[in-house]
Amino acid sequence: VRMSAGVEWAVHCCVVISQADEPVSAQKLAEFHGVSRTYLAKSLQALSRAGIVRTTEGRAGGYVLALAAGDITVLDIVQAVDGSDPAFRCTEIRQNGPFGAPAEQCTTPCGVAVVMASAERAWRESLRAVSVADLAGHVAKVTDVARQRAVRDWLSSSAD
Amino acid sequence: VRMSAGVEWAVHCCVVISQADEPVSAQKLAEFHGVSRTYLAKSLQALSRAGIVRTTEGRAGGYVLALAAGDITVLDIVQAVDGSDPAFRCTEIRQNGPFGAPAEQCTTPCGVAVVMASAERAWRESLRAVSVADLAGHVAKVTDVARQRAVRDWLSSSAD
Ligand code: FES
Ligand code: FES
Repeated sequence: VRMSAGVEWAVHCCVVISQADEPVSAQKLAEFHGVSRTYLAKSLQALSRAGIVRTTEGRAGGYVLALAAGDITVLDIVQAVDGSDPAFRCTEIRQNGPFGAPAEQCTTPCGVAVVMASAERAWRESLRAVSVADLAGHVAKVTDVARQRAVRDWLSSSAD
Repeated sequence: VRMSAGVEWAVHCCVVISQADEPVSAQKLAEFHGVSRTYLAKSLQALSRAGIVRTTEGRAGGYVLALAAGDITVLDIVQAVDGSDPAFRCTEIRQNGPFGAPAEQCTTPCGVAVVMASAERAWRESLRAVSVADLAGHVAKVTDVARQRAVRDWLSSSAD
């Protein structure tokens, strides 16, 4: 059970984009996080496809959030990058073998699958409880104002 | 984020072993679940290594639980098969780039990593709340007594 590295990048990108005064270019996001632009592109595309960020056109074009930062949860980002398939997949082995349950008795999920699904629900609910705005608020609290200003200026500067 | 198929087999095997009167051979476990013995061997080895099952020697040799069924949680089995590494790995990208935080300011985990860790804790706690005995109790409740007896007899029969 392993999340892809793109999840860390994607969450950090959303937080940075939410803090910027202007659209942020892919190049700035890659530099800011010290990540290859090629690798990051995949995460940004996943965020775009999921309707979490969108690109603006023009000379100062770049990424903006497509929704309010308070309406984007960590779960949304994780699922945009890693998909929303359950981690546990029941292959109905209870139907196999000499004592296999007939399919018509298997209309409700196996008890094992129920336990796994309930654990994944707890995981999702935990990630759904935190938004990009919450994370940005946390960053703002631990970063002094001059530095926040400097970051915003650097993100907005057209040199890239 | 995907669990290996061996998790489903391993949990079902532990439940079956807990229901048997005698040690259960690997061959019986494979047949019972309609799974290749070669594939299943890997899961059974993982359970052995984790101290969840052990093998008994002799003509009627096979697998028994190494602990009371009530003391083996679903989490124990999942971690035996899939490992206990966290799904999310923070690569400290906050330390990268022109505004990277110096390492000495990063003695506590990043807010993003904290959220991920807390979700994984919720997942683990959910899986830790259910034991093999709980699952076996559920199976016993939905299976009539004659059938339970037939399963136990088949598991104990030496033909294999
Ligand atoms: S049959 Fe799939 S988890 Fe039990
Ligand atoms: S630096 Fe790794 S999650 Fe933030």
